[in-house]
Amino acid sequence: MTHQSPVLDTVLVHIAATRPAAHARLFEFLRIPSISAQPDHAPDCQRAAEWAADHLRASGFTARILPTGGHPVVVADHPGNGSGPHLLYYGHYDVQPPEPLDLWTSPAFEPTVVEGKHGPKIVARGAVDDKGQVSMWLEAFRAWHDVAGGVPCRITVMLEGEEEVGTANLLPFMRENRDALRADAAVISDTGMWDIDTPALTTRLRGIVYTEITLRAASRDLHSGIYGGSALNPINALTRILGNLHDAEGRVQLEGFYDGVAEIPAEEAAQWNALGFDELSFLGGIGLSVPVGEKGIAGLQRLWGRPTADINGIWGGYSGAGPKTVIAAEAGAKVSFRLVPGQDPERIFKSFERFVAAQAPADAHITAKKFSADPAIQVPLDNPLVRAAQSALEDEYGKPPVMIGCGGSIPVVEALHSILGLDSLLMGFGLEDDQVHSPNEKFEVKCLDHGTRAHARLLAKLAK
Amino acid sequence: MTHQSPVLDTVLVHIAATRPAAHARLFEFLRIPSISAQPDHAPDCQRAAEWAADHLRASGFTARILPTGGHPVVVADHPGNGSGPHLLYYGHYDVQPPEPLDLWTSPAFEPTVVEGKHGPKIVARGAVDDKGQVSMWLEAFRAWHDVAGGVPCRITVMLEGEEEVGTANLLPFMRENRDALRADAAVISDTGMWDIDTPALTTRLRGIVYTEITLRAASRDLHSGIYGGSALNPINALTRILGNLHDAEGRVQLEGFYDGVAEIPAEEAAQWNALGFDELSFLGGIGLSVPVGEKGIAGLQRLWGRPTADINGIWGGYSGAGPKTVIAAEAGAKVSFRLVPGQDPERIFKSFERFVAAQAPADAHITAKKFSADPAIQVPLDNPLVRAAQSALEDEYGKPPVMIGCGGSIPVVEALHSILGLDSLLMGFGLEDDQVHSPNEKFEVKCLDHGTRAHARLLAKLAK
Repeated sequence: MTHQSPVLDTVLVHIAATRPAAHARLFEFLRIPSISAQPDHAPDCQRAAEWAADHLRASGFTARILPTGGHPVVVADHPGNGSGPHLLYYGHYDVQPPEPLDLWTSPAFEPTVVEGKHGPKIVARGAVDDKGQVSMWLEAFRAWHDVAGGVPCRITVMLEGEEEVGTANLLPFMRENRDALRADAAVISDTGMWDIDTPALTTRLRGIVYTEITLRAASRDLHSGIYGGSALNPINALTRILGNLHDAEGRVQLEGFYDGVAEIPAEEAAQWNALGFDELSFLGGIGLSVPVGEKGIAGLQRLWGRPTADINGIWGGYSGAGPKTVIAAEAGAKVSFRLVPGQDPERIFKSFERFVAAQAPADAHITAKKFSADPAIQVPLDNPLVRAAQSALEDEYGKPPVMIGCGGSIPVVEALHSILGLDSLLMGFGLEDDQVHSPNEKFEVKCLDHGTRAHARLLAKLAK
Repeated sequence: MTHQSPVLDTVLVHIAATRPAAHARLFEFLRIPSISAQPDHAPDCQRAAEWAADHLRASGFTARILPTGGHPVVVADHPGNGSGPHLLYYGHYDVQPPEPLDLWTSPAFEPTVVEGKHGPKIVARGAVDDKGQVSMWLEAFRAWHDVAGGVPCRITVMLEGEEEVGTANLLPFMRENRDALRADAAVISDTGMWDIDTPALTTRLRGIVYTEITLRAASRDLHSGIYGGSALNPINALTRILGNLHDAEGRVQLEGFYDGVAEIPAEEAAQWNALGFDELSFLGGIGLSVPVGEKGIAGLQRLWGRPTADINGIWGGYSGAGPKTVIAAEAGAKVSFRLVPGQDPERIFKSFERFVAAQAPADAHITAKKFSADPAIQVPLDNPLVRAAQSALEDEYGKPPVMIGCGGSIPVVEALHSILGLDSLLMGFGLEDDQVHSPNEKFEVKCLDHGTRAHARLLAKLAK
């Protein structure tokens, strides 16, 4: 354990002493049914924003509730008692709909403490995603304010209300408010730990190119008896094209697909190997037993560090009961590519278009749509903020965090990077079994308490 | 023109003299809305059966209306004034629903004579499919009865009321009434001519094996970010498998698929080549320009004489608007094979099962269903009934009929063969533009009149 400042000691003592009040505040937050997807709950979204703004004001922040095309964004600012980096804390106050209600063991918006295998846990919609995790840094700010008169470095908060419905209005909001949101780096707690005893920083997110292609042939559906053997069948053609997406070794066959894909750095690879990831048990949980993907590459490397191609949907012709002897006029598919650092999303999309066009038979009219083209995110491990967070987590847990990847993308992280130029520190305290988006969502009290303390420690590390 | 019997001359004169009455009778038949698919019209189906039974009784037949699990079957019998072959005439009194009604230029069940490019045509639901074509042989029987006291050879009639809903109840009916339906061959008028001046006999029907396969992988839908690169994607796997159905030359890749497929006999091939089939214009009508299928084989040969594989439907994953990053738990497809003489449907199905299984990745749980497995039908050209029909049509039209194929199957022809052991003479008088199953279905009066006379002539040819 590294040397610790006397101020931080006091902050941590204060956090311990005010723990019941902090939990009570979180419960207030959780009782607001701020369901962004349901228009009836727009007033609750507004209330949740106001609740968070008040919390921040009580910690010395100036806080405003700013309108967007949808639910409002809370923007708050504190100059900080020091000259450390200027941090932008991002979170969201909105939650997923609680349905199906009958599967909840206690009402979704009446937070309930239940004893579990890791001790007490808070069961409520939003417990971990994201109100509980937002509450960790809100409480850390408050403790610093109460003990030291304010946070020790400059902080801007951006708390949105539409993360669960796609963050669409936040992107223009960020473009329009670039000045107010200027900072050195972003901090986000909306991810997970490796396990309850092992903190983690997520330093890699795969990017994504998501496409839809349609292949149109005849001007109408045809009888397969009358036309079979003469007329182009778009489903035959589409399966033929997409069936070639991978070779026998599991490598994606788009030209230039692997251009720029870097080897995983030795430090990361060593850490991942040390995690003891059991891919067979990972797959066993979903009824599978044999990994797919590129041959000869270990599980976590494939999931976090290698690109993929997946057909997410396919359609065409007749899919009802029984037979129908039809040759469809059109078929289509959704095809997405997970990207890793070094891959250029626009080039991948163009290569996919060429891949399809090069195999298209005569009379195939192909259209390709692009729904997203986001590059992978990689936070350099030698980033000072990452090093500070490593140190804070090591102090808190008695062991260093593991640096993990995430196979999926987090659109706001990409937006923070592309619009505001910010790297994001992803320091989250969720667990795999937290039932995110499902009935009986929960947050371990142990995770909540460690997380609050870790956030308080991080600020101490950055104070200058 | 061959020598013609004096009795036939009298029959043909009688047909000419009673033409208005015969047309009036057909109009009565067409006014009965015997829509088999619509339960409200069950009494109309019964009425249509009774109408046909009465018609047959007036021609000296004993006629019964026999119940089935659905609409009844008319079975009628005439011993015949001679010792020719015993013929089973098959037809159907039911019709397709007329909807959409607003597209009809005159009410569907008020037959209307309209002047067209080939002279007058009768516009009504069922005009050609199949009431008009049934009426041709009903009137031929009546003329023979009126002139000669009865048809010149033994005839059994089987007129069903469920052809438009799949003929399902007729098959057990045929099994249960094998004795009553015993005959030497079947005669059906439910097909078409080559063009308005060129009669045709359909001597080939492709068979069909219709299958559905499903490929199940994980126990639930997965997030493609979290699992992509590790978990089996059933759509990836299915497109990979089905994409290999054909090679680059358009040949179906099932093992043994072409075993037993015979060359098209020279007489047939020569006739087909002489038809001047314009495949580009055939495809141009549906917005296509390049034939698919086996390379190096002429259009009609491919359509009538070569087997095919078509994916009739495919599904899996997300097909709604926008993106969804899902790896589906399951995907499926309907796949059918058109068969030609020499191919064994059961062997084709088993070969398809092996084709899929051999390519199935680990963890793919595959089920294959078989909806139909009917062999191709080929009536030997040297069949005496075919020769008699050729001669009758040549007498009627002044040129011989062309022997054509049909890319689709006609289930009752297969059932007549497999259950009753009968070859079928398919002598039809429809035209390609008759709008079968569509609004403004029509039957050319010219075709109706020639067809009635041709049926009268056929009986004379067979009389001994």
